[in-house]
Amino acid sequence: MTVAARPPRLYWEDFPAGRVREFGSKTVTREAIIAFAREFDPQPFHVDEEAGRESLFGSLCASGWHTVAMTMRMMCDEYLLDAASLGSPGVENLKWLKAVYPGDTLRVRLEVLEARPMASRPHVGLVRSRWEVRNQRAETVLTMEGWGMFGRRPAPERA
Amino acid sequence: MTVAARPPRLYWEDFPAGRVREFGSKTVTREAIIAFAREFDPQPFHVDEEAGRESLFGSLCASGWHTVAMTMRMMCDEYLLDAASLGSPGVENLKWLKAVYPGDTLRVRLEVLEARPMASRPHVGLVRSRWEVRNQRAETVLTMEGWGMFGRRPAPERA
Repeated sequence: MTVAARPPRLYWEDFPAGRVREFGSKTVTREAIIAFAREFDPQPFHVDEEAGRESLFGSLCASGWHTVAMTMRMMCDEYLLDAASLGSPGVENLKWLKAVYPGDTLRVRLEVLEARPMASRPHVGLVRSRWEVRNQRAETVLTMEGWGMFGRRPAPERA
Repeated sequence: MTVAARPPRLYWEDFPAGRVREFGSKTVTREAIIAFAREFDPQPFHVDEEAGRESLFGSLCASGWHTVAMTMRMMCDEYLLDAASLGSPGVENLKWLKAVYPGDTLRVRLEVLEARPMASRPHVGLVRSRWEVRNQRAETVLTMEGWGMFGRRPAPERA
C-alpha cells in the first residue's frame, strides 16, 4: 500500500466535543474559479467577468461547490490525512453566506459539536462538527455541519 | 456580455411545487475520480487503488464532493443554464448513501418541494428542491435538499 502506509496519528478519541481548530490559508485565483466552474458549474457569473458584474454578486465569483471543495482540501491538509478517517455520511445546513471573489483568502474554524461511538461498528466513532469559513475581511462566507467517521484508537498491546 | 447574452427560457414560475424532472447521464472515470481527489480531497481511498480496497468502501471511490459537483453539472446542463438562476443560499440534509465507483453512471431526479416569492426582493422567487442521484443499479447514492433563487418572469409589455 502506498498512500495509506503511514499509521494514523489521530483517532476518534482526538475529536472530543468542544475541540476547536483554526487553520488554512487558501487564496483563490480567477483562473481556479473559472476552471472549476467550466467543469462543474458553468453558470455565467462563475465563468464570465461581465456576467459576474451584472449579477447579484457584483463580480465574477466562485461556485459555492468550489468553496466547499477548497474547504475540504484545507481539512485534509490540516488533520484528515493524519487521521483514521473513514469518510462521512453527510452534511447538514450548508450555507453560502457571502460570495467568494478572485484574490480572496479563506481560513477555516472547526468546532466539534458532538462525538459518540457508532453502535453498529464498535471500532468506529462518529464526530459531528461545525465548519465556518472566513475571508480576509473576517466575513463568514460558508458554514456547514456534518458527520465524520473515524477509527477508534487501538488498545495498547500487553506484554 | 458573452455568456449570458441569451435571455433565459425558464423563470421562477417554471418551478412550481410538485414539478419533477429526471435527467442526466454521467459516467465517472477512474481518472476523473483521482484528478478531483488529488486537488480537493486526497484521502487514500479516493486516490489509491489499494487503499480503496482496504477501506470500508471496498474499492477506490469518488469524493462525495466530486459526486455533488457532477450533480451540479448535470443540473446546469438540464435547466440552470437556461434559467434566470441567481444562485443559492444553501443546501440541507446532504447525504452520501452509497459510494460512487469508477464506471458508475449517475442520473438525477429533482422534485420541487416548495416555491415562494422572496419578500425582500419582489423580482426574485425562491425554490426548495430535493435531488436524488442514482447509479446504474438504481441505488440512490446521494440525496440533498436546497434552495435556489430565480428571477420572476417579466410582465408582458403593453402596446
